Amino acid sequence: MIKKEKYSASILVIGDEILSGRTQDTNSNYISKKMTEVGVNVSEIRAIPDTKETIVSSVNELRKRNDYLFTTGGIGPTHDDITSESIAEALNVNIEVNATAFNDLEKYYKEMGSPFNEVRQRMARIPVGAILINNPVSIAPGFKLDNVFVFAGIPKIMKAMLKNSLKYIQTGCIMHSLSIKVDTVEGDIAEILRTLDLEENELKIGSYPFFNSELDFGVNVVIKSVDKEKLSKAAKDFKAFLDRNSLSFN
Amino acid sequence: MIKKEKYSASILVIGDEILSGRTQDTNSNYISKKMTEVGVNVSEIRAIPDTKETIVSSVNELRKRNDYLFTTGGIGPTHDDITSESIAEALNVNIEVNATAFNDLEKYYKEMGSPFNEVRQRMARIPVGAILINNPVSIAPGFKLDNVFVFAGIPKIMKAMLKNSLKYIQTGCIMHSLSIKVDTVEGDIAEILRTLDLEENELKIGSYPFFNSELDFGVNVVIKSVDKEKLSKAAKDFKAFLDRNSLSFN
Repeated sequence: MIKKEKYSASILVIGDEILSGRTQDTNSNYISKKMTEVGVNVSEIRAIPDTKETIVSSVNELRKRNDYLFTTGGIGPTHDDITSESIAEALNVNIEVNATAFNDLEKYYKEMGSPFNEVRQRMARIPVGAILINNPVSIAPGFKLDNVFVFAGIPKIMKAMLKNSLKYIQTGCIMHSLSIKVDTVEGDIAEILRTLDLEENELKIGSYPFFNSELDFGVNVVIKSVDKEKLSKAAKDFKAFLDRNSLSFN
Repeated sequence: MIKKEKYSASILVIGDEILSGRTQDTNSNYISKKMTEVGVNVSEIRAIPDTKETIVSSVNELRKRNDYLFTTGGIGPTHDDITSESIAEALNVNIEVNATAFNDLEKYYKEMGSPFNEVRQRMARIPVGAILINNPVSIAPGFKLDNVFVFAGIPKIMKAMLKNSLKYIQTGCIMHSLSIKVDTVEGDIAEILRTLDLEENELKIGSYPFFNSELDFGVNVVIKSVDKEKLSKAAKDFKAFLDRNSLSFN
């Protein structure tokens, strides 16, 4: 089987609370890490409000441009949870009560001794043709429709849904990476980074300065390649440069 | 003076390290909070890679659609720092060495006893017509060009640059908000939230469930309005509903 070299994904974070600054989104970082692990390149992360037209247009823009689109947020029972119906509209399918989701939720609330009221029943409304994604925490499912994965916004639930979705994700070539922490500032190493960063070496090099205090600052240099040998040669060359210039690193 | 009711902003987070999951972006959350405080509505947050074409097209899309655009990341001295030249290209101006930036940096590195080498001099290259934004931490400035504010990615520097930019931001009507933490699940309060969420009341209501453990879960209900009286009436109505239904809150 020929493996596609690289798969791409984007992440759509849906929720007014992200844009007002009330909530720090951590879901997209978690998904990005997992995608990097399985060789899927995240090309864009976008946070938008709970507004139907914006959700519809963003979903269509991002899903067409990438192999996968993950959305987080807006699938709960309240008035501002409009993700499911917006996804249905974006993909031009109907949304209706899903029997499996309805039965699972009914059973769950019965066991909890809570009413399975009209607003809770909203969570059983799923776009037609979608595959349910199991939610072991609070039962209301996420779903996969075409190349769009629709997850809850609560991190604990989102993580479980992502785990339950990995079987649908094609694994690309894994990008290997090495991180070298250098006790200096970027200006001291920028020149050598430029010489290492050759496309013919199939290397990707990033340099990430940090500055915690006057005494605690430096640069994390991350070298990446799908080819382990080229990666280790580049790291060796870089460390030799650091030694020659009396720069400490670890 | 007639105050424009609402100003809008978007945030463009530039950097491969965000999309790989290596770095958790916190800058956009910080900027969002500050914008909410001064009555500016953040309509979108977008994270993109260090790729010139993507930066150029995203900058033009977002700056045209909003009163302000803030970018973070990519203005350091290394090969992957291409934000400044991309902004110049997006706004169709030249980029050249800015005398003020050059002199400040030269002085700074002289005092530090570090060479002001070619790669460091890159940080003095600023799009023509831009206003410099002071960086008290490591001197290399950000800048404002038209309605685009270009900040560093290091949080400490970004925060200083945002502070130094607030004088250019028009203050909109401040949205007041009240948060009520209810010891229940969303399904128990969704119905009343729907009745409070009336456009004629000029209210915006969000409900944010959290689930830390089987014993620690609940819903934060956030009611917002530019009108303090309407806000406090809605909060009173909501609390009366919670009392009637024996739901505890604080």
